[in-house]
Amino acid sequence: MTANRTHVPLRQATTLELRVRYAETDQMGVVYHSHYLIWCEMGRTDHIRTLGTSYREMEAAGIRLAVMEASIRFHAPARYDDRIRVTTTLTDVSSRTVTFDYVIDNADTGERLATARTVLISLGADGRVTALPAGARQLLSRGSPGA
Amino acid sequence: MTANRTHVPLRQATTLELRVRYAETDQMGVVYHSHYLIWCEMGRTDHIRTLGTSYREMEAAGIRLAVMEASIRFHAPARYDDRIRVTTTLTDVSSRTVTFDYVIDNADTGERLATARTVLISLGADGRVTALPAGARQLLSRGSPGA
Amino acid sequence: MTANRTHVPLRQATTLELRVRYAETDQMGVVYHSHYLIWCEMGRTDHIRTLGTSYREMEAAGIRLAVMEASIRFHAPARYDDRIRVTTTLTDVSSRTVTFDYVIDNADTGERLATARTVLISLGADGRVTALPAGARQLLSRGSPGA
Amino acid sequence: MTANRTHVPLRQATTLELRVRYAETDQMGVVYHSHYLIWCEMGRTDHIRTLGTSYREMEAAGIRLAVMEASIRFHAPARYDDRIRVTTTLTDVSSRTVTFDYVIDNADTGERLATARTVLISLGADGRVTALPAGARQLLSRGSPGA
Repeated sequence: MTANRTHVPLRQATTLELRVRYAETDQMGVVYHSHYLIWCEMGRTDHIRTLGTSYREMEAAGIRLAVMEASIRFHAPARYDDRIRVTTTLTDVSSRTVTFDYVIDNADTGERLATARTVLISLGADGRVTALPAGARQLLSRGSPGA
Repeated sequence: MTANRTHVPLRQATTLELRVRYAETDQMGVVYHSHYLIWCEMGRTDHIRTLGTSYREMEAAGIRLAVMEASIRFHAPARYDDRIRVTTTLTDVSSRTVTFDYVIDNADTGERLATARTVLISLGADGRVTALPAGARQLLSRGSPGA
Repeated sequence: MTANRTHVPLRQATTLELRVRYAETDQMGVVYHSHYLIWCEMGRTDHIRTLGTSYREMEAAGIRLAVMEASIRFHAPARYDDRIRVTTTLTDVSSRTVTFDYVIDNADTGERLATARTVLISLGADGRVTALPAGARQLLSRGSPGA
Repeated sequence: MTANRTHVPLRQATTLELRVRYAETDQMGVVYHSHYLIWCEMGRTDHIRTLGTSYREMEAAGIRLAVMEASIRFHAPARYDDRIRVTTTLTDVSSRTVTFDYVIDNADTGERLATARTVLISLGADGRVTALPAGARQLLSRGSPGA
């Protein structure tokens, strides 16, 4: 653990369920890969809500978290009308970045479909990189497994 | 012609070409229908540019044109990698609305794929309906077939 | 009522709730208009499920319902993280087409956001227009307000 | 170089230009991150075309290349109406996978916006992992910097 990391003792994962939209499929008969990143965004929004705020309120307070890095690995395809479960973990909070990990499963069969990670960077209302306000950092840290 | 309409003598249509993205297909093996509305937006953006301004500049000047009505009729499917031609006509400009008509063809075969119309309403920077500034209205009217 | 219409006595509307995704917003700060058509698709999928089948099963049985016409009128904007309610009514079933009407509201405030209609046409597995199989037509008719 | 890699002497990058659609922006006023993966797909499609075939023809021949891994790093935002340049390099071809690297710039300013990599896996028409046919592998290898 570096001085730049917030110590938090608990690992809190949240789960979100959604159903695959027809619009999300492609002619291969499966979900087009970029939509999984949107499901991650949904998981992240939901996760932040469980911490007692919402990303909407954070933006209203002048905080922006922009995706700086995303990586995703696909294990099995999701199909139209499948029920999907997104499990989101906030794995790291630093002075300027927040990292979320995601596991995406078929909610009915439990089959692992994808795993992903996104690193978000804190921007001010002007779009420049800025330190997370202390309150936001503390609040987000409640959801991080920490050091 | 009503007093509310701007008289313009010329019908100017513009054409835009694009290639169908894999992401735009669905599991029926054809383009998912909502994407055609995005192609219309591209045609509209391109059309406004030919009038000597750009929608980007209009927004920078505090004008917003929001879609108030959209209707579209599908004649034949577009498929992945097809070259598509969007023909856009600005068919009406009133004090608060701008109407565009679109014809979407396969650029290689000439087959008619869809026809559409969108009515846009002028909003101020606060999101409220407002009259189009005279300059913008005059400029857009150059592209309208008028009364 | 024409001979081509199926008589059904009951008007059955279904409602679906969803939450606006960040990905669905645009730089105007509201939901981009084409996404409402996807919400209509979700309402339609959900509506068909309440009739005792699913569109997924219909496709597996060789039936395809392709959007032939769509029209939508926007009354007020939806915003990120809003809870949205889609009320779907199957308003007409003919030998080859199925018509759905939609009302899209803010689920918290009840504000009317949009109203839409889509006409879908029955295609065979080869993509050609074909009469709806009698069983599918009868089943869908349960959800139509009919003559 | 392992025995599993195809030796090719030349590094061939291709460039594709596109203009940012309004639909691709989000309420942060910039392009929503998942769309960059679609731009990568466009770069890939274009790149394969320069090799003398097309992904469309490959699919018609029973070959499917599904995205197995994607990673992307964002350096600066793209905005509505920006002209974007996607530079695509085919960096590796193995018996079952094809790797593409992408650099995404602002075409007018040359500013670096994003860098990405996708690893695609060869699937048969049945969706199972299968070796790339020799002809396809040889053809794709023309675009790979190889060993």
